[in-house]
Amino acid sequence: MTEARPVRVCVDTMGGDFAPAEVLEGVTRALAADPALEVILTGPADIVVPYAETRPRATPHPTTQVIAMEDHPASAVRSKGDSSIVVGCRLVRDGEAEAFFSAGSTGACMAAATLVMGRLKGVARPAIATIIPTPTTPVVLLDVGANADCKPEHLVAFAHMGIAYAQAVLGVTEPAVGLLNIGEEATKGSALAIEAHALMLSAVPGFAGNVEGREVLSSAVDVIVTDGFTGNVVLKLLEGTSRTLLLQVREAMTSSPIRRMAAAVLAPSVRRMKARLDPDTYGGAPLLGVRGVCIIGHGSSSSRAVCAGIGVAARAVRGGMPERISTAVAPEAS
Amino acid sequence: MTEARPVRVCVDTMGGDFAPAEVLEGVTRALAADPALEVILTGPADIVVPYAETRPRATPHPTTQVIAMEDHPASAVRSKGDSSIVVGCRLVRDGEAEAFFSAGSTGACMAAATLVMGRLKGVARPAIATIIPTPTTPVVLLDVGANADCKPEHLVAFAHMGIAYAQAVLGVTEPAVGLLNIGEEATKGSALAIEAHALMLSAVPGFAGNVEGREVLSSAVDVIVTDGFTGNVVLKLLEGTSRTLLLQVREAMTSSPIRRMAAAVLAPSVRRMKARLDPDTYGGAPLLGVRGVCIIGHGSSSSRAVCAGIGVAARAVRGGMPERISTAVAPEAS
Repeated sequence: MTEARPVRVCVDTMGGDFAPAEVLEGVTRALAADPALEVILTGPADIVVPYAETRPRATPHPTTQVIAMEDHPASAVRSKGDSSIVVGCRLVRDGEAEAFFSAGSTGACMAAATLVMGRLKGVARPAIATIIPTPTTPVVLLDVGANADCKPEHLVAFAHMGIAYAQAVLGVTEPAVGLLNIGEEATKGSALAIEAHALMLSAVPGFAGNVEGREVLSSAVDVIVTDGFTGNVVLKLLEGTSRTLLLQVREAMTSSPIRRMAAAVLAPSVRRMKARLDPDTYGGAPLLGVRGVCIIGHGSSSSRAVCAGIGVAARAVRGGMPERISTAVAPEAS
Repeated sequence: MTEARPVRVCVDTMGGDFAPAEVLEGVTRALAADPALEVILTGPADIVVPYAETRPRATPHPTTQVIAMEDHPASAVRSKGDSSIVVGCRLVRDGEAEAFFSAGSTGACMAAATLVMGRLKGVARPAIATIIPTPTTPVVLLDVGANADCKPEHLVAFAHMGIAYAQAVLGVTEPAVGLLNIGEEATKGSALAIEAHALMLSAVPGFAGNVEGREVLSSAVDVIVTDGFTGNVVLKLLEGTSRTLLLQVREAMTSSPIRRMAAAVLAPSVRRMKARLDPDTYGGAPLLGVRGVCIIGHGSSSSRAVCAGIGVAARAVRGGMPERISTAVAPEAS
């Protein structure tokens, strides 16, 4: 590894179904993987203080409240000012951390980051992006759920934010951008898609036209833009379909002793294939458009996913993601 | 097979990428599979007349025009009154056939069926349904592309039509219906989904609430309702994901001689798995809400898919699908 610049990431130790154990294990893995990483840990004192005592690059920041998955996001953020999520966002706002990672409630992270860090100038609607692994190069898909109802100009802003993210985190110099739609032609699709297509033609560098559902895993674009309703359905459908198909493959491979023997021969290459398509590789979805880096992990994040999510946070900081977004959405202000 | 009542299905011999050869082969298979099936074939005289001469239950109905995939649907339907698609719909309208099957242009079939057969009373927007095979029971998904922009009341009508289709073609007595959405709660989702959810609670018998993307292949519902934009993305994403994952599995299984040997052992069970999830099993998507049965096949339909599509058409007629839809959408008129 070349010498990376030091990065300070705040991690919510109370986020996710397997917190704090898997989160702390993920932090340990991330610290081992990145010698220039420093972490600040928010969460109960009896968890973060003992953990940090034995790790040189970990600083505890005890908090007294926790936002639960079932809490109403916006009201929890308002009423639980000393929660691990709200304090984490505050540390980024105040410059004590450069990024925040949580595998907690997506709604609460969104609300806290938007309220506490604030939106970047020129961003009307922060969006959640996700990196979809494909057999070839990964694809950035956004919005995957922050905005269920969108206007055409929101999709244009999502395109700019997606470009900045692909540049900062995936290292793609000039990302190609597609608009998720139900036909190839500019005149196809919903009123939203048709109008967004027209706007993107002039406003989005690298706009490569419409991408249909069947090309999501095989298109040549680096960024796919859609509204948060469709994007969320796509993301979850991909998860569900992969799980169902791989279960079926497994069943086909283990339904008799001789098949189990044959499957044992194939196990390493099937495992490699699964690893290549494993969403945990990218471990977290950024909320793009806020003043700072905020990476939201899956509620069921394993330590591997937490480690990957912290890695994404560090790459986003080192790649200058918020600055790139700022420049892209409000070029005159930069 | 128990003695089924005779059904007359009109088949467009010029529809699809492999017409007329695969279509005619599909008709032959369908006639062999269903002794009570009669077919009327629209298409050029030199194709339909010689074919029908040697088949007892096939009647030629020569036409002089063909609507191409690249023709503008509505204008082609208006300008090509003697095309295999328009004439097929006219035969249904005039009672000479009970159903129409085409693997031709989806847009042209929709336009012709709507203009020539007409809409059922109470149906504002005909919708395209598709049957998605899953590891357990198949699911009817609609709309998959007829209406990119929908209002909440359209989704309610889609639910009624989907119920009628599941009853008539899948034989499910009391289908459970889900609304595709991005959360479980009634208050989650787009404005469209939230309002549709509220309407469906009172208007749709068997409404089981929201279904998320990850449950499309594993939910307990028989019918999933969504707008034509989201539905089309879902349908094509399922196709693309299955293809990509199965290609990856194949690659994992054939990347060395010993793996190929192991794969040979597994081939039959993998083939069975693929067959179980093969969309060609259901071979065609009905346009629901028109006065008659209109089944639209995939452009790339094989003879197997054509045969399955004709089978779906016959089942829809025998199951009284249009009458069921009529009753469901306009109960007072029945």
